[in-house]
Amino acid sequence: MTLDIETAASLAELDSAVCARQSYASSVFDALRTLSEDAPGVTRASFMEGEQAAHDEIKRRARELGLGVSTDAVGNLSVRMPGRRPDLPVWITGSHLDSVHHGGNFDGAAGVIAALVAMAAMIDAGFQTERDVVLMAFRAEECSTWFVGRHGGHLGSRAALGLLWPGELGTAVHISTGLSFREMVDKAGFDAARIESGPPALQADRIAGYVELHIEQGPILEHREIPVGIVTGIRGAYRIRNAKTLGAYSHSGAVPRELRQDAVFATADLVMALDREWSRRLIAKQDIVVTFGKFSTDPDVHSIVKVPGEVKFALDIRSQEQKVLDEMEAHLRNAADEIARQREVTFTLDPLDRVRPAVMDPDLVRALQQAADELEIPSLTMASGGGHDAADFAEVGVPSVMIFVRNSHGSHNPEESMELTDFMQATRLLTRLIATEAGNGMTNQEKQICRERS
Amino acid sequence: MTLDIETAASLAELDSAVCARQSYASSVFDALRTLSEDAPGVTRASFMEGEQAAHDEIKRRARELGLGVSTDAVGNLSVRMPGRRPDLPVWITGSHLDSVHHGGNFDGAAGVIAALVAMAAMIDAGFQTERDVVLMAFRAEECSTWFVGRHGGHLGSRAALGLLWPGELGTAVHISTGLSFREMVDKAGFDAARIESGPPALQADRIAGYVELHIEQGPILEHREIPVGIVTGIRGAYRIRNAKTLGAYSHSGAVPRELRQDAVFATADLVMALDREWSRRLIAKQDIVVTFGKFSTDPDVHSIVKVPGEVKFALDIRSQEQKVLDEMEAHLRNAADEIARQREVTFTLDPLDRVRPAVMDPDLVRALQQAADELEIPSLTMASGGGHDAADFAEVGVPSVMIFVRNSHGSHNPEESMELTDFMQATRLLTRLIATEAGNGMTNQEKQICRERS
Repeated sequence: MTLDIETAASLAELDSAVCARQSYASSVFDALRTLSEDAPGVTRASFMEGEQAAHDEIKRRARELGLGVSTDAVGNLSVRMPGRRPDLPVWITGSHLDSVHHGGNFDGAAGVIAALVAMAAMIDAGFQTERDVVLMAFRAEECSTWFVGRHGGHLGSRAALGLLWPGELGTAVHISTGLSFREMVDKAGFDAARIESGPPALQADRIAGYVELHIEQGPILEHREIPVGIVTGIRGAYRIRNAKTLGAYSHSGAVPRELRQDAVFATADLVMALDREWSRRLIAKQDIVVTFGKFSTDPDVHSIVKVPGEVKFALDIRSQEQKVLDEMEAHLRNAADEIARQREVTFTLDPLDRVRPAVMDPDLVRALQQAADELEIPSLTMASGGGHDAADFAEVGVPSVMIFVRNSHGSHNPEESMELTDFMQATRLLTRLIATEAGNGMTNQEKQICRERS
Repeated sequence: MTLDIETAASLAELDSAVCARQSYASSVFDALRTLSEDAPGVTRASFMEGEQAAHDEIKRRARELGLGVSTDAVGNLSVRMPGRRPDLPVWITGSHLDSVHHGGNFDGAAGVIAALVAMAAMIDAGFQTERDVVLMAFRAEECSTWFVGRHGGHLGSRAALGLLWPGELGTAVHISTGLSFREMVDKAGFDAARIESGPPALQADRIAGYVELHIEQGPILEHREIPVGIVTGIRGAYRIRNAKTLGAYSHSGAVPRELRQDAVFATADLVMALDREWSRRLIAKQDIVVTFGKFSTDPDVHSIVKVPGEVKFALDIRSQEQKVLDEMEAHLRNAADEIARQREVTFTLDPLDRVRPAVMDPDLVRALQQAADELEIPSLTMASGGGHDAADFAEVGVPSVMIFVRNSHGSHNPEESMELTDFMQATRLLTRLIATEAGNGMTNQEKQICRERS
């Protein structure tokens, strides 16, 4: 991209305006922390008090900037900054405002605050885009924490994009209240019936692009000493929330090996079978992580002197490659069949929920890399291990990309720790992308079409 | 053993008297069941109501037979049937009266009721032994169920025999009340101070022999369709009640394998390392069973989307051979060191409690085999997988032996199921052994000495 002198000057002014908003950003983080403090850390439960307080605060801040706000049927917040061409598809940036129980203040909130800072800076610099720019704060992204039962995660963004499964409003159950997703939406003052019957709040063909800033949930940027990551793809996940191994309880001293049906040995055998396959695939340079996050004998029945008759476990397999996920599922089922036969146990491996990998838009990735070079911000091109609202936009065909911020101690815990200076670097990058992509009046795809036609 | 005609006749009468007491035996089982009913099954918690009710019932039944009763400092019940030679070491038979929570009516109680039936039959048949015969009902044998903290199990019989570890009265903690063993003893009306300061209630050199009838806790007799087992040895147990694997929690999607410290993979790896060693030793015809009865991630912290940072587990390794137990411990520690290094976790494998294997007296085993032949009772010579009070008698050098009764569904559960006819066969065998051993006036050891001297 070659900039004319006027554009280059106004982009430089905008970048200065972003930097000048550092203490503003800090004050918004502090406000959210105070509103949802629950030592250690914060709790912003989906559809409950802490999340609502965060939404109210962002709404208040947006109005303070003179921007219009609205809320959709599931409770997602939109803040619109009008461009010169309201007829064009919009650019969206945002993230979620819920946190896990006793989580940190940055997971999700950082992406919403970055969007707010970008808008504030555009106002400060008098920078108007061609397209409308929309900040979105999504509900219920931390669904592995707040919702049990059958669901596909990211309930807020998936509801807005029309991606909910049939019946999902009923099968997702809130862990704090025992109410269904449908009941939680209505109880929080939104409109579950409209989610079901109305058209989706967001139409893919009316969205030019989506960018989401998020703290990195892993240790890679910290390990490599790089402040900002540019995300090329989001790992898909094949998950079994309530897997079970059923054997038979018996006396730990009196029953010989050949008459045992030991659920712990059988499950450990399965864990190690996947461990070997995981290693094999890493050597073959495939992208894959495997986690048995829960593995428990029954606390009401188990004993040091009993052969354990039951194990409950949870399994999460992730990869950027759909093929790897499918092959791992096949391997899992084969290994389970073999072990079940040998050890006379029964494995329950269903339902297995499949979230497909999402590929970030290569043109947007390149645009971010170029912006990082221009702004002299060190960046690493990398995959996202965690799922994000961005994956849902990618799934419906919206060109999407993510910016990661270096973060210590992982996410989903009170110790998550992002430096404000790293956040500001990432926000400069975010703002530059929006300014050039939304400011240009043509999406990369549209430009491609023009190039092809010319 | 060659019997003179008179002895043979009186033993035959005694055997008939045992058989005639079948409905009496049934009524005592029923009484205990009623007194400790706790559907499903019965609960006779050590040092609590159910166990006490059983002790009171056996005491009442003994007095009904005109026998003298006494209680020692830890609360064990003794019922004495005087012989002609009170100067000689006594013969003891009995078992325990506590059960696990929602246990069956037979584990423990069967041995006490068999002793009572034997005494009733001797009275009925006018059969007096040379030696005193003492029925003992022990307290607190089900210690893996009722006591946590550090202890060596079988608290009742070990207290009586002076086998408690220093401090064990304080380190064993009752699971229902949180009180120490010492406090439970005093609260139940017995005398913990006397356990500590006084001489043991039982002196090994004043005991000629010990025999205990017990339901088999495994499925071997049922599997082989044999009503009675003659026990050659009791497996020792090396146990870790509160083992722990400490890794680090992190995000299940965002952290690459090389930066994980996954406690579930590490523990599963350890389980499989012991599994391979177990198989190897079985092929080498060694006696061994290995059980991880508990294996749990932390329910307060674990999640399908977290690499698990902690696993708590319990390990129970049993063998009839001390050498096998020692070698397995060494293997466990080596494997744990290796896995801890590879997977960057820490294993806590202490304290490891060591209960040594007990060998049953070969002469008593032969005497039981001969009695089974004479009485035409099908029997199987076998090892005991479970620990029993008999092991403590063997440990202090008392010639000891056990008789197993066929039993379905294992023990320690409400479905344990022993046929009264099998129980009566075993009780005939028990009575015959006591009659000949206590009746003879010389222990097998004494006879051996006589033979050697002659």
